[in-house]
Amino acid sequence: MTIWHDIDTYAKKWITEAGERIRTSFKEELTIQSKSNADDLVTNMDKETEQYFISKINETFPAHKILGEEGFGNQLESLEGVIWIIDPIDGTMNFVHQQRNFAISVGVFENGVGKLGYIYDVVHDELYHAIQGEGAFLNEMRIPNLNETALTEAVIGINATWVTENKRINPSVLGPLVKDVRGTRSYGSAALEIAYVVTGRLDAYITMRLSAWDFAAGMVLIEEVGGKLTTLEGNEINLLEENSILVAKNNIHQEILTKYIRK
Amino acid sequence: MTIWHDIDTYAKKWITEAGERIRTSFKEELTIQSKSNADDLVTNMDKETEQYFISKINETFPAHKILGEEGFGNQLESLEGVIWIIDPIDGTMNFVHQQRNFAISVGVFENGVGKLGYIYDVVHDELYHAIQGEGAFLNEMRIPNLNETALTEAVIGINATWVTENKRINPSVLGPLVKDVRGTRSYGSAALEIAYVVTGRLDAYITMRLSAWDFAAGMVLIEEVGGKLTTLEGNEINLLEENSILVAKNNIHQEILTKYIRK
Repeated sequence: MTIWHDIDTYAKKWITEAGERIRTSFKEELTIQSKSNADDLVTNMDKETEQYFISKINETFPAHKILGEEGFGNQLESLEGVIWIIDPIDGTMNFVHQQRNFAISVGVFENGVGKLGYIYDVVHDELYHAIQGEGAFLNEMRIPNLNETALTEAVIGINATWVTENKRINPSVLGPLVKDVRGTRSYGSAALEIAYVVTGRLDAYITMRLSAWDFAAGMVLIEEVGGKLTTLEGNEINLLEENSILVAKNNIHQEILTKYIRK
Repeated sequence: MTIWHDIDTYAKKWITEAGERIRTSFKEELTIQSKSNADDLVTNMDKETEQYFISKINETFPAHKILGEEGFGNQLESLEGVIWIIDPIDGTMNFVHQQRNFAISVGVFENGVGKLGYIYDVVHDELYHAIQGEGAFLNEMRIPNLNETALTEAVIGINATWVTENKRINPSVLGPLVKDVRGTRSYGSAALEIAYVVTGRLDAYITMRLSAWDFAAGMVLIEEVGGKLTTLEGNEINLLEENSILVAKNNIHQEILTKYIRK
């Protein structure tokens, strides 16, 4: 048993425990929170969950560093050592408005290399997980390698925002892509949308501004099924900055770059 | 026990049985079908499910008429009598690509008035159901009446297609709406997206071309929680033709009409 299998055992235990705490916080599934209450709720649950991870990690692996969305981790200027990259609740708006379609996302990197990845769809109790080099799994099921799909038959994740007037990209860049593919979807959780690409439910997912905690777990998972995750320009991701994201099956990744982004 | 409670008992039994048949047809959740196989599969499953409903309805309620997506029902020129309006698999593309995010949709109308509505999220075993005047339910839970939400805090269901070049609507009509709301989503099953509006997970859902079987069940459900379903222009639905759809909380429905559609 390598060190990574050891860490994997702890990570899974903590993630499923954190998920259980979130589920029990929903007193009744159909109580949609009013805005102010909901904002309080999400803030508390986000913070509580991140602090839960931090206390467990500090206690068990005191040498490890932590990069978390809520900011209770370390301020990092380099990727040296072992770093846990954590989004306690990815898809906060869904958490508040829907009490579903959100995930816990945890990636563990060593000197900038992805070693462990976990995306936990809390409400559906579905854990997407991977150890580098050992394949990706959904709960106990092995996720098969991605096959090729023609772009005209592809279903891609892209929010309507990116093809209307917005601050980050000219709507005319991705508009033609939306027109050419078979269909588009938008689920509102980057981690889950990357997990959908990993399992082949989406053929690609595009978004304009994510931080490391949104996609660190996804980077490890996509690697294990032979897909590709880069910036929208096809460049390597910088974990210490915000990035645009293009994650897809290889042939679709290439085709989107060639026909729509770099044309 | 009225006639409608009697029909309700049969409808629920048949819908859950049909769902069970679909679930057992998935040999393994992660087998994403290749296109040609998948098209065969969905065709067969769509047809089989519709024929299952038709045989049950004809046997039990021989005077009732049936309007079904697959065309095995009656050719209807009027809404007289009792009509079952059935989509055996709403969200066919999701069924093929994802094996989730699709639904069985069944509405029962009498002389054009919605009496019973059922939207069954097969994979998650969630049945949204209503008898006219008796409230809407998700499984055994009562769905509360919809409250108001400010448009700027709303999350709406709209596909990127309708804000890029397309055959049905000028992208500039709905583009500003996408910009003004808190967020947009797209799930790829009209029935489920209407069910999301019914439960308050979405504040509105807009699409450009649906047939009666896509929204008949949703019409009955939305009525029971005090929401509104019309064409995008705010006109009454014609069940015998294709319609654009705007379904929303009342205040959001009004605001979308006034600020974006009729401006």
